[in-house]
Amino acid sequence: MYVRKSRLLTPGPTPLLPSAVRAMGAADLHHRTAEFRAAYSGVIADLHYFMGTENGIALFASSGSGAMEAAVSNLFSPGDKVIVCAAGKFGERWVQMAQAFNLETVVLAKPYGESVLPAELEAMLRQHPDVQGVLVQATESSTGISHDVQSMGRMVAATDAILVVDAITGLGSSILEIDQWGLDVVIGGSQKSLMIPPGLAYCSVSEKAFRRAEIATNPNFYFNLRKHVEAGPKGDSPWTPASSLLLGMAEVLRYIRELGRDQLIRNAQLLARATRESAQALGLELFARNAIPAGAVTAILAPDGLDSGQIVRAYKDRFEAVIANGQGSMKGQIFRFAHLGYFDFHDLFATIAELEIILHELGRNVDFGVGVQAAQAVYLDALGAANGGQR
Amino acid sequence: MYVRKSRLLTPGPTPLLPSAVRAMGAADLHHRTAEFRAAYSGVIADLHYFMGTENGIALFASSGSGAMEAAVSNLFSPGDKVIVCAAGKFGERWVQMAQAFNLETVVLAKPYGESVLPAELEAMLRQHPDVQGVLVQATESSTGISHDVQSMGRMVAATDAILVVDAITGLGSSILEIDQWGLDVVIGGSQKSLMIPPGLAYCSVSEKAFRRAEIATNPNFYFNLRKHVEAGPKGDSPWTPASSLLLGMAEVLRYIRELGRDQLIRNAQLLARATRESAQALGLELFARNAIPAGAVTAILAPDGLDSGQIVRAYKDRFEAVIANGQGSMKGQIFRFAHLGYFDFHDLFATIAELEIILHELGRNVDFGVGVQAAQAVYLDALGAANGGQR
Repeated sequence: MYVRKSRLLTPGPTPLLPSAVRAMGAADLHHRTAEFRAAYSGVIADLHYFMGTENGIALFASSGSGAMEAAVSNLFSPGDKVIVCAAGKFGERWVQMAQAFNLETVVLAKPYGESVLPAELEAMLRQHPDVQGVLVQATESSTGISHDVQSMGRMVAATDAILVVDAITGLGSSILEIDQWGLDVVIGGSQKSLMIPPGLAYCSVSEKAFRRAEIATNPNFYFNLRKHVEAGPKGDSPWTPASSLLLGMAEVLRYIRELGRDQLIRNAQLLARATRESAQALGLELFARNAIPAGAVTAILAPDGLDSGQIVRAYKDRFEAVIANGQGSMKGQIFRFAHLGYFDFHDLFATIAELEIILHELGRNVDFGVGVQAAQAVYLDALGAANGGQR
Repeated sequence: MYVRKSRLLTPGPTPLLPSAVRAMGAADLHHRTAEFRAAYSGVIADLHYFMGTENGIALFASSGSGAMEAAVSNLFSPGDKVIVCAAGKFGERWVQMAQAFNLETVVLAKPYGESVLPAELEAMLRQHPDVQGVLVQATESSTGISHDVQSMGRMVAATDAILVVDAITGLGSSILEIDQWGLDVVIGGSQKSLMIPPGLAYCSVSEKAFRRAEIATNPNFYFNLRKHVEAGPKGDSPWTPASSLLLGMAEVLRYIRELGRDQLIRNAQLLARATRESAQALGLELFARNAIPAGAVTAILAPDGLDSGQIVRAYKDRFEAVIANGQGSMKGQIFRFAHLGYFDFHDLFATIAELEIILHELGRNVDFGVGVQAAQAVYLDALGAANGGQR
């Protein structure tokens, strides 16, 4: 038996930032004190920077699904018609949630592994001019694809409808110009690019969305948007905040300010590109097809004859590493590596080297090193010149 | 300048259990693994022990208000009539929440500092035989009183209505025989007797309550009771759980099993009794009148001519200790010491000695030691014999 450190390579939870772990240990913390109010309002200010928006921001003690519910329960009334772009497990969650709140749900469904095309949404908006909202994922992490929310934002902005974007894995892993693109509600979670455990969710809310909230009649209380958006900048929360997680988030946002928000996004996208090239160099097939691949997570098809669960299990059994299987009907078919948040090339080189060992062990022909070389090439292509320039 | 350790003496958040703080630092944790499922289902099993109920238990990533909303949104339909027992800030929260979900709300209001009498509820139930629910606090921590939920349970059990008990500060600080007394829904939070930071809430749900959930039409998704109650014993949660807090809770519940659930309750009640006797020995007046004093928290009236905020500030400025002011209209009038969770006599002796110094400094005549002596007498009365017996 050798040393085996346990590692998370999943698209949420993601590896924790060490200084955030230390911050979360604060045991002498009351949330209605000047110190905590300063931390809370600082987090709200830093979220404006991280999200790149001047819209109001609500922060909830909940998982990301809670902030999704906030959008549905605050912005719509029973019988309101919404279009849901659904191409994976999280698109389907929008459908379930909209139905739970008695919305009339028009589903723009695409097969798993594909993106909804802007032209398809445009046609559907023409077909349903009475639509009051469009619900979509920036990144569908169950399949490793993105939707073109920039084009969708432009289309929806020209209507009375509002665009609600689940960017729980999209934030910090893809460029989202919230204000310019007209993304009315954009939703994030703590255990993704924000490098702390699950338990906090947040969303930005445009004035257009607030105007809809004023006439919407679905009931809400815990997830009331207006109350949260107004209280946050004062360092308050309507209900007891998840205070230890908040201190961790404050630390992470400080780190992201130092690193640069765009740099964090480029980091994820570069790791995603390297992962795609490594997988293809090893003869594996990417799951994203007719699709924009996500920067947050890469989904790879298990080779013919293998259950992807075998690969997931081998990572755990051999290397104490947790990678993601497919979800729902994709279970057993794909496996997924995450890139969003606190991941670096060191993580990736080793992960690919381990993949080579695992494929070999599962009876595949593997040229050891070929996958790693592909990742090294991406690294040198992106960072080699910069290093050279510094000499 | 001397060493001053910062301390929480508030009824939530409460002091953290050190082993729970260590457990919450786990950075290599994924919630869809066998290890985490075992921890999760273990927490559900231990919550059955802690709450003393065989009813199903739902565990949410939210603050306590989220679990309160779960009761309102799962069990009732718009237009349903509920009686709300309101004698403080949290009673008023029930009213706001019931109204947000369009219930017809009959308020049984009592002045702050008093308990609702069972006979008053009985009269109101006779007056409104069409009532579908009664909402109450076990402990109204804003004023330091308890309601007699045992008698209320018996009354409501004889009707078709269900009794929903906010026991966020009542659990672990007062005896609640959930199953025997017919308490249909009983709600708790993590940052109270459970000695970890805020961010988890839980509630037990009787079969009678579930029968009502089946016909209720208020919308809910994130806080769906049935989904949570069914998933928990399997170690699953419908949405991403607040996993670091859950590991902390597992540790606390292990501690409570060792200590004994009834012993934890006796501990709070003994500290509450000692606090009351100390305050009275110092010539202070208790706020609870015509009321059952709470084991969770003791509210004391500021002496004539003093704003209770002066006492709260002095604790912070002199001793880095956070005690609670009054809330809402009680602000400036009362100050509150907590007893629920990880508090011991050592904490109390020092807190009272500090109160003597603070009252002296604020110009009151104080016989130094008189308050502490009263607490010592309670300690010796309760524990002296036991220690003697062990010699």
